[in-house]
Amino acid sequence: MNVKQLPPLFNFEAMEKTAVFSNGLTGQDILSVSQFDKDKLDYIFARAREMREMVERVGGTDLLKGHVLACLFYEPSTRTSSSFIAAMERLGGGVIPITQGVKFSSVSKGETLADTVRTLEQYADVIVLRHPEMGAAKLAADYASVPVINAGDGPGEHPTQALLDLFTIREELGRIDGLKIAMVGDLRYGRTVHSLTKLLLQYNVSLRFVSPEILRLPLNIMNQVIDAGINVRETHDVADVIENADVLYVTRVQKERFSDLSQYEEVKDHYEITPELMQKAKKKMIVMHPLPRVGEIHYSVDHDPRAAYFRQVRNGMFIRMALLAAVLGKA
Amino acid sequence: MNVKQLPPLFNFEAMEKTAVFSNGLTGQDILSVSQFDKDKLDYIFARAREMREMVERVGGTDLLKGHVLACLFYEPSTRTSSSFIAAMERLGGGVIPITQGVKFSSVSKGETLADTVRTLEQYADVIVLRHPEMGAAKLAADYASVPVINAGDGPGEHPTQALLDLFTIREELGRIDGLKIAMVGDLRYGRTVHSLTKLLLQYNVSLRFVSPEILRLPLNIMNQVIDAGINVRETHDVADVIENADVLYVTRVQKERFSDLSQYEEVKDHYEITPELMQKAKKKMIVMHPLPRVGEIHYSVDHDPRAAYFRQVRNGMFIRMALLAAVLGKA
Amino acid sequence: MNVKQLPPLFNFEAMEKTAVFSNGLTGQDILSVSQFDKDKLDYIFARAREMREMVERVGGTDLLKGHVLACLFYEPSTRTSSSFIAAMERLGGGVIPITQGVKFSSVSKGETLADTVRTLEQYADVIVLRHPEMGAAKLAADYASVPVINAGDGPGEHPTQALLDLFTIREELGRIDGLKIAMVGDLRYGRTVHSLTKLLLQYNVSLRFVSPEILRLPLNIMNQVIDAGINVRETHDVADVIENADVLYVTRVQKERFSDLSQYEEVKDHYEITPELMQKAKKKMIVMHPLPRVGEIHYSVDHDPRAAYFRQVRNGMFIRMALLAAVLGKA
Repeated sequence: MNVKQLPPLFNFEAMEKTAVFSNGLTGQDILSVSQFDKDKLDYIFARAREMREMVERVGGTDLLKGHVLACLFYEPSTRTSSSFIAAMERLGGGVIPITQGVKFSSVSKGETLADTVRTLEQYADVIVLRHPEMGAAKLAADYASVPVINAGDGPGEHPTQALLDLFTIREELGRIDGLKIAMVGDLRYGRTVHSLTKLLLQYNVSLRFVSPEILRLPLNIMNQVIDAGINVRETHDVADVIENADVLYVTRVQKERFSDLSQYEEVKDHYEITPELMQKAKKKMIVMHPLPRVGEIHYSVDHDPRAAYFRQVRNGMFIRMALLAAVLGKA
Repeated sequence: MNVKQLPPLFNFEAMEKTAVFSNGLTGQDILSVSQFDKDKLDYIFARAREMREMVERVGGTDLLKGHVLACLFYEPSTRTSSSFIAAMERLGGGVIPITQGVKFSSVSKGETLADTVRTLEQYADVIVLRHPEMGAAKLAADYASVPVINAGDGPGEHPTQALLDLFTIREELGRIDGLKIAMVGDLRYGRTVHSLTKLLLQYNVSLRFVSPEILRLPLNIMNQVIDAGINVRETHDVADVIENADVLYVTRVQKERFSDLSQYEEVKDHYEITPELMQKAKKKMIVMHPLPRVGEIHYSVDHDPRAAYFRQVRNGMFIRMALLAAVLGKA
Repeated sequence: MNVKQLPPLFNFEAMEKTAVFSNGLTGQDILSVSQFDKDKLDYIFARAREMREMVERVGGTDLLKGHVLACLFYEPSTRTSSSFIAAMERLGGGVIPITQGVKFSSVSKGETLADTVRTLEQYADVIVLRHPEMGAAKLAADYASVPVINAGDGPGEHPTQALLDLFTIREELGRIDGLKIAMVGDLRYGRTVHSLTKLLLQYNVSLRFVSPEILRLPLNIMNQVIDAGINVRETHDVADVIENADVLYVTRVQKERFSDLSQYEEVKDHYEITPELMQKAKKKMIVMHPLPRVGEIHYSVDHDPRAAYFRQVRNGMFIRMALLAAVLGKA
C-alpha cells in the first residue's frame, strides 16, 4: 500500500459517490496498537488528514450513509463516546448510543457480553465497546461478525487513543523520527503511556520517562524499549527533561496511588507543568495530555501555543473517522 | 389490500422519491396484536421483506427523512430501544432518545404521562413507549395525536415482539399453516408467549405448551386456543415435544417464581435446550427465544443452524422499519 | 436589518442550496434575554415562522447538514433537551446527546466545566448547556470558541424559554403591543416569569402580577417594570385579572415554599385555572404555562381552544431551530 498513490476519498464535486476500498483494515477489529505497523499508521494518518480537510471545508459527508454504529459503553466516558458519535455523524452514519446505564438493562437481566454483542450486530454495522475488564473487547470481537473497535478495556488497551496521540505528534511537529519524547506522571498505571510507547518503538525516537519511584514504567514495557535499541532514560523530575523535550506527554499523578500522603505532597510538584517551567522549554515543542487533567497542567499554560492537548482531542475525531471508514470498507 | 399488487417501496434507481400510501395503518397506534388480521400481517411482512432487501443492498434510505421518532422508555430495554433507533436511522429519520432516567426528569417533577406525551408530540411524528404499567400505551395513545407504538407495557402487551416472532417463523420455515409449534418455559407470566399464541390462532397450527405445573398457560388464553379449534396439548417436559416440533419457542423459567427452591431444582432440566436434546429434533426446525437467556439454551447450541434467535433479533429491526413507515404513511 | 426584506431561507424547489447569512447572531452565544432588542426579536420570529412552515410542509431539511450540536445537560430536562435535539435533527444536523449522568463521567474525574466545553468544541459546532449553577453558561461561553446556548443555568436565565413564550403571544394573538398580560403563581422564584417580563418591557403592554404575598415579584424586577413606564398592578387572586387578561401566564405555586402548610392550603385555590374561571375570561385570550404543571391548570381546561400551552411547547422547537441556524450562520 503506497500512501502517496491512494485514490482521494472525497471528490468535492461529487461528494456522494463512494467506492469500496481494500485497505487491509476492512472488516477488521481494532483491538490493540500491535495491529498497526508503519504502513497502516501512514495509511490511517493520510485518511485522518482527509477527514480534517473535509470537516474544515464542509463539516460532514455521506460517506457512511446507510451504516449504523452501536456505541456500547459499560462505563461512562463522555469524551470518548462523544468523539465516536461526532465521527460517525460527520460521516453521515447513524448511531445507537448505549452510553449510560447498560448495567441496568440487558446486563442486569443476566445477559452476557457475548449475547449483547451478537444482538447489537443484528442492528449495527460496527460496534465500539468500552468495558471495565481487560479482554472484553477481544471476547466481543470473537463473537461478533461485524468489526469491534476497542474504546478501552480497563487496564488493557485503548488503541484509538494511542493512534490519536501519535497522529498529534506527527501533525504538530511534522515528523516522528528524531524527536525527544518525555512521558511524565503516572507511568505505571497510565494505559495511554504504555500504548503510545509501544507505537513509538517503530520509530527512531529518544524516550524520557519521568515519574515518582512508585509509579515507574512497568518492567516488561521498559524491557521492550531497551530491546528496540531506543535511546532511553528515567528520571524523577520533569525539570531534568524540559529543556530538550520535543514532546511532553503529561499524565496525572493520583493521590490515591500513595499509601503515605506526605510522600505524595513531597513529590507532586515535580510533575506539574507551570508557565515558569515552560519558559525553559524549546520554542517549538508541544505539551500533550490524554485529559481529563486535575491540576497537573496549570490553566495559565493553556494560552501557550505549545499547549496541544485540545488540538489532540480534535485529532481524536479525525482518527476515529478514518478508522470507522476503514473498517467499513469505505476508505 | 392485495399484497401481491403492492407498489414497490424502493425504486433503487430513484431512492428518494416516495409516495404516501394508504395501508390501513397510516396514522394508527400499534397497541395490541389484536389489531392484526391476516391481511395486515401479510402486508407488514411484505414490507419487512423489502426493508431487509434494502438494508442488505444499501444499508439505509431516506424514506422517513424529515420525520422524528421520540423513543420514550420508562424502564430500560437496550435491545428494544436499540432496535427502534436503528430502524428509524436506517430509514433516514431522526430520533429523540429518552431511554434512561426518565424518572429523574419530567416525571420526577410530578408530570403525568399524558402531559409528557402531549409535549413530545410537538417535537416528534411518532412515539415509541415502554412503560412498566399495563395500559400505559393505551393511555398515551388516547392523548397523543401522533401514532403511539407500544414497546411493552408491563404485564400488558409487546406487539412488535409478537410480530417479529411470527415473521421469523414465516421466513425461516416458509409458511405458518401446518406447523407444530411448542412453547417452552414460563407460560404463565411470559408476555411474548401470550401475544404470539394469540396471533397464531389465525393460522392452522398445532400448539404444544411445555411448562412446570405452576407456570402453565393462563386459563383465559388456553380457552381461546381451544375455542379456535387448535390442536393443542400441555406437557411438563420438552423431551415430549422435541421430535415433532417445527418451532421450539423457549422462554426462561425464573427461579424467583418458585417459593420452594428444591422444586425449581427438580424441574429446571426439563426446560433446557442442550445439544443432546437437539439431536432428537427434526433436521428442519428452529429454536427461538425472545432473549435475554440465562442458561435455558446452552451456548453450544448457538452453532446449530437451527438456532434462529439472533436472526429473530434482526427480523425485529425489519418489522419495526415496516411499522414505522406504515404508521407514518410512507409504506 | 429589515425583516420584510429578508431573503427566504427555504427554496422549496431547491431545498439543498444554502447561503451564509449575516444576521448579527452568527457565531454569537445566546446567554440572556438582554441580548435581544426588538430588531433581533423580529428577526428570530420571522425565521421561526419559516421553520414552522418548513416542518409543516416537509418535516425536515438539510440546512445544517455537516453541523454537530453537543447537548450537554448537567441536570436532566427531558422537555428542553428533546426540543433542541428535534430542532437540530429537523435541520439535518447531528447531535451528541449528553443528557444523562454527566456527573458520573468527566466531571466525576474532577474535570472542570471549562475543560469539558473546550473538549466538546473540538467535536461540535455549537454547544447547548444546561447547568444547575447560575453563571455556568457565561463561563462556558468565555472558554468556548463555538457558540454556547444557555438552556437554563439554575436561578439564572433560560433565554430560549423566554423567546418561545414571547413568540407564542405574538403568534397566538397577532401582536404584543396593547395586550394585558397577567403572570400568575410563583413570581418570586419563577425564572421564566422574570425573563419574559424583561422582554415585555420593550413593548407597550399592561402587566398584572398575581401571587401569594410570600411569592411576589422580586423588588429589582418590579422596579424595572415601573421604570419602563409600564401599566402594572399586583394582586393576590387570579379572579381579579381574569376578565380583562389577554394572556394568563401560569406557573406553579409549590407547597415547599410555605413554612406553614395551612397557609398554602388557604391560598392555593386563588392560583388555579379551572373551567369555571375560564368562563369569565375573554373569548379571545390564551392560557400559557412553561410546564410541567402539577394541578394548577385543571385537565378539563385542556380542551378549551384558549389553552395554548402545548402549542407553546411546539413553538419552542421552531425558536430553537431559528436560533441554531442563526448562530451557525445559516439563517
